[in-house]
Amino acid sequence: MTNTSNKMIKIGIVGYGNLGKGVEMAISQNTDMELTAVFTRRSPESINSKATVYNLSEIENFKGLIDVMILCGGSSKDLPEQVIQISKHFHTVDSFDTHAKIPAYFDEVNRSSTENKTLSLISTGWDPGLFSMARLLGQCVLPQGEDYTFWGKGLSQGHSDAVRRVVGVKNGVQYTIPLEDALEQVRSGSNPKLETAEKHQRICYIVAEEGADIVEIETTIKTMPHYFAEYQTTVHFISEEELLKNHSKMPHGGIVFRSGTSASGSKQKIEFSLELESNPEFTSSVLVAYARAISKMSKEGQIGAKTVFDIPLGYLSPKSAEELRATLL
Amino acid sequence: MTNTSNKMIKIGIVGYGNLGKGVEMAISQNTDMELTAVFTRRSPESINSKATVYNLSEIENFKGLIDVMILCGGSSKDLPEQVIQISKHFHTVDSFDTHAKIPAYFDEVNRSSTENKTLSLISTGWDPGLFSMARLLGQCVLPQGEDYTFWGKGLSQGHSDAVRRVVGVKNGVQYTIPLEDALEQVRSGSNPKLETAEKHQRICYIVAEEGADIVEIETTIKTMPHYFAEYQTTVHFISEEELLKNHSKMPHGGIVFRSGTSASGSKQKIEFSLELESNPEFTSSVLVAYARAISKMSKEGQIGAKTVFDIPLGYLSPKSAEELRATLL
Repeated sequence: MTNTSNKMIKIGIVGYGNLGKGVEMAISQNTDMELTAVFTRRSPESINSKATVYNLSEIENFKGLIDVMILCGGSSKDLPEQVIQISKHFHTVDSFDTHAKIPAYFDEVNRSSTENKTLSLISTGWDPGLFSMARLLGQCVLPQGEDYTFWGKGLSQGHSDAVRRVVGVKNGVQYTIPLEDALEQVRSGSNPKLETAEKHQRICYIVAEEGADIVEIETTIKTMPHYFAEYQTTVHFISEEELLKNHSKMPHGGIVFRSGTSASGSKQKIEFSLELESNPEFTSSVLVAYARAISKMSKEGQIGAKTVFDIPLGYLSPKSAEELRATLL
Repeated sequence: MTNTSNKMIKIGIVGYGNLGKGVEMAISQNTDMELTAVFTRRSPESINSKATVYNLSEIENFKGLIDVMILCGGSSKDLPEQVIQISKHFHTVDSFDTHAKIPAYFDEVNRSSTENKTLSLISTGWDPGLFSMARLLGQCVLPQGEDYTFWGKGLSQGHSDAVRRVVGVKNGVQYTIPLEDALEQVRSGSNPKLETAEKHQRICYIVAEEGADIVEIETTIKTMPHYFAEYQTTVHFISEEELLKNHSKMPHGGIVFRSGTSASGSKQKIEFSLELESNPEFTSSVLVAYARAISKMSKEGQIGAKTVFDIPLGYLSPKSAEELRATLL
């Protein structure tokens, strides 16, 4: 006989920034899950979580006690280091979001998790994640057409993380903003050819360290590959006070359009959009739903690296397949 | 050595109404697929398809020559009869759309296809289908919230099919129209409780057979379970001339909203919408993309009945998993 507590999906959080905090909140909204422990590289005492907090060095002691580890570090440095170590012992879910580096990241994680017979979902959240799924679906259903992804207006976690890692930057945020002209062209149905950089601008608000070379900072940001190099980027230097006052909320959103035609010439349009008051809390909600899927799939014996393209949607739900067919189909 | 033609996915179409015609068109937009044959209960000579047309009675001769049969009949009578016979010999995809009867339909198809080691995807299209997926995703990612599905304004294939089967009806169409009040309430973010019938009205334009009892027709339509009984339904009787002139296009669309909150109280909104100039051609495009998935999964040895909740999105694409990760994630 299994008791209720054995049926609960046991989650560990690695890294307790905005994303880690969001995961703790999201777990509290899912009655089939519990947060077993938080792991941090910082001093555990400094972490304000309702769960027990451990130093990351203790993580291996939890082998067999945690069903899925949700890795909440940044994509530039944390995740590539941590996922290889942690996937040796645990099933993992992460939100690695450097699109251009995903293939190499996938291969490394796949090698490690296959070797260690664990299951790892990489690059979930909303983009990569739900938006990727909307793009894929649009292209498969309407093979003759164009798709367009617009982000914002919103504060981008990945890009803010990237600017904060620049030498001389004390704090900073980055907003992604759709270019109005581009939105209008797409809505007109004219199916324009638009590169990502022709659809958005990036605006950074930076607090520099005392005595830092702000010209150097601006150049480093504007030339950063994958993140800023190809965009119309503006860098504003502001005081820490102003940053905290005006830029501490993290709204985001965006739209994925697929605008296609059937063979007869009928116009068909698919639109998937998000309007988020809190970007990290939403990303966390997605990570938690996918942790449920990884828990179920690992129990079936699946191993290796996966992406959102490999996960049947039914696995995201706490409901049975029968219940889903009866109530949601 | 396999030649190119052996790699093509071979499709058969059963039933050549609007949906069957749409499937033929959609196949022409997918370079990895070919239409092997069309099967009809009517005289094959009467069918205007570019493919070879056979009487339905000849379908078993195509065993081993067709990878997936796409069943394009109506949900009220055709599909429940045909799927059990055809899934004995072929993998199938259908768009069975009587939501309330899906669980029983699934069980029957699952029994037949499991016994005969075939694979059958039931109830795909856009609703059930893509809209079901949007509802599931919304509930899993934002467990605290409400979802709302609005249909239209548009002509509903399933409901038009149902009115045309009423005794005394020569021809007819049905439009589903969102009730403006309800849309406004949802957009306000007030998360109202709304039954389906409180969100839409149904309007039918009917051409009666000469001498038919139009009072009887109206009553039969308005009291039809699952289709009309619980809705605000209006029935207009018009001439065949007027029907052909004003009601021969088949636009449709709709919106699935999920309006939720994170545990901190942040409002998060997911919206999935379709704007379709041709409803049957879009449904057909979805059926064809899922036929690709069923072809791939059947080659892996999967059997039994499936729904869209069981299919990883990657299977819908002609691209390899590597290519999808590199270009779409």
